[in-house]
Amino acid sequence: MSRTAGSSGVKTLETIKKAALRLIYEHGYDAMTLRGLANKVGIQQGSLYNYFKTKQELLFMLVSSHMEALTEQQEKALAGIDDPVEALRTFIRFHIDYHISRKHEVFVNYSELRSFTPENYKIIADMRSQYENRLIDIIIKAQKAELVPQYDAKVAAYGILAMLTGICQWFNPKGRLSKEEVITTYMSMALSALQVRASH
Amino acid sequence: MSRTAGSSGVKTLETIKKAALRLIYEHGYDAMTLRGLANKVGIQQGSLYNYFKTKQELLFMLVSSHMEALTEQQEKALAGIDDPVEALRTFIRFHIDYHISRKHEVFVNYSELRSFTPENYKIIADMRSQYENRLIDIIIKAQKAELVPQYDAKVAAYGILAMLTGICQWFNPKGRLSKEEVITTYMSMALSALQVRASH
Repeated sequence: MSRTAGSSGVKTLETIKKAALRLIYEHGYDAMTLRGLANKVGIQQGSLYNYFKTKQELLFMLVSSHMEALTEQQEKALAGIDDPVEALRTFIRFHIDYHISRKHEVFVNYSELRSFTPENYKIIADMRSQYENRLIDIIIKAQKAELVPQYDAKVAAYGILAMLTGICQWFNPKGRLSKEEVITTYMSMALSALQVRASH
Repeated sequence: MSRTAGSSGVKTLETIKKAALRLIYEHGYDAMTLRGLANKVGIQQGSLYNYFKTKQELLFMLVSSHMEALTEQQEKALAGIDDPVEALRTFIRFHIDYHISRKHEVFVNYSELRSFTPENYKIIADMRSQYENRLIDIIIKAQKAELVPQYDAKVAAYGILAMLTGICQWFNPKGRLSKEEVITTYMSMALSALQVRASH
């Protein structure tokens, strides 16, 4: 389809995705209509079908493209880092930095897991696991090197991820604390929570 | 109104609240209709108006009654505890224990903050602050007693709350870990994150 292949097609797709993300963030997936979306973008409803066939496909596209970009950036950030504590520090900084400016994506990725078909849910859940497993693996590596105690690495990773992602719920870029101040505070909290040996 | 005053009225109201919570959890507030709710409960739509006047009033009732019960139980749990570290321990246990069996309430209370009128939002936000401030005050008290370092108590409290509440996203009562095992692990993570002096 020429509209999706050309640069104007790519631009329209980005506009559609942004508008859809906003509508789902504000009203939820079930309440969002393709008619309302077309109105918001300022195109005919029929034109949407150049970019996706169903509302479900749109949701999957939104969430999976976020997860793909996230995992790609995660790999890039952690590439070549061998020391587990250095990897933990890098992961913590990366996770906060990436999500803090994407609160709409974070909200929709979490709240609309309910709205996927079982097939799509499984794909998204696997993508989430892949991202989380990277942190779990770092913790296990730190445990093997006796740099942290022998707690349940998976449960610990979930705790850290929830703590860090929770920043999106209250952080205000124009607020009292800068992003760097937040990263400093949470870096300290997360490393302490994991009980990284003080000597390291 | 006799229907709401009598014991059968109270029972019906509880049935309505439970069904509404489930529908909002599954589809979102905007997508929920009072017609669908009445169908689910098995009453006439008109009968719903014996219990609330608008969908907004229903949402407010759901969330505010949860917050009231939560704050009441929090006060009860912390009553008479003077030692700040003992209070931290009690708060952490209470918070996990209360929320772990209420994942629908937790989800709706968070995801549908967007759906309140400004007036109702303010009341709910104040109730949330009241609950959070209890933890912030305990941390400040622990700082004054030099039992924890001088970090930002508010930011630290947000981190702990996000970490603990996040358990609702993955905990399965029939899963690998018991509630007590989860509480033990998160107790250790939270106290470590707050850097409670080891000697205490």
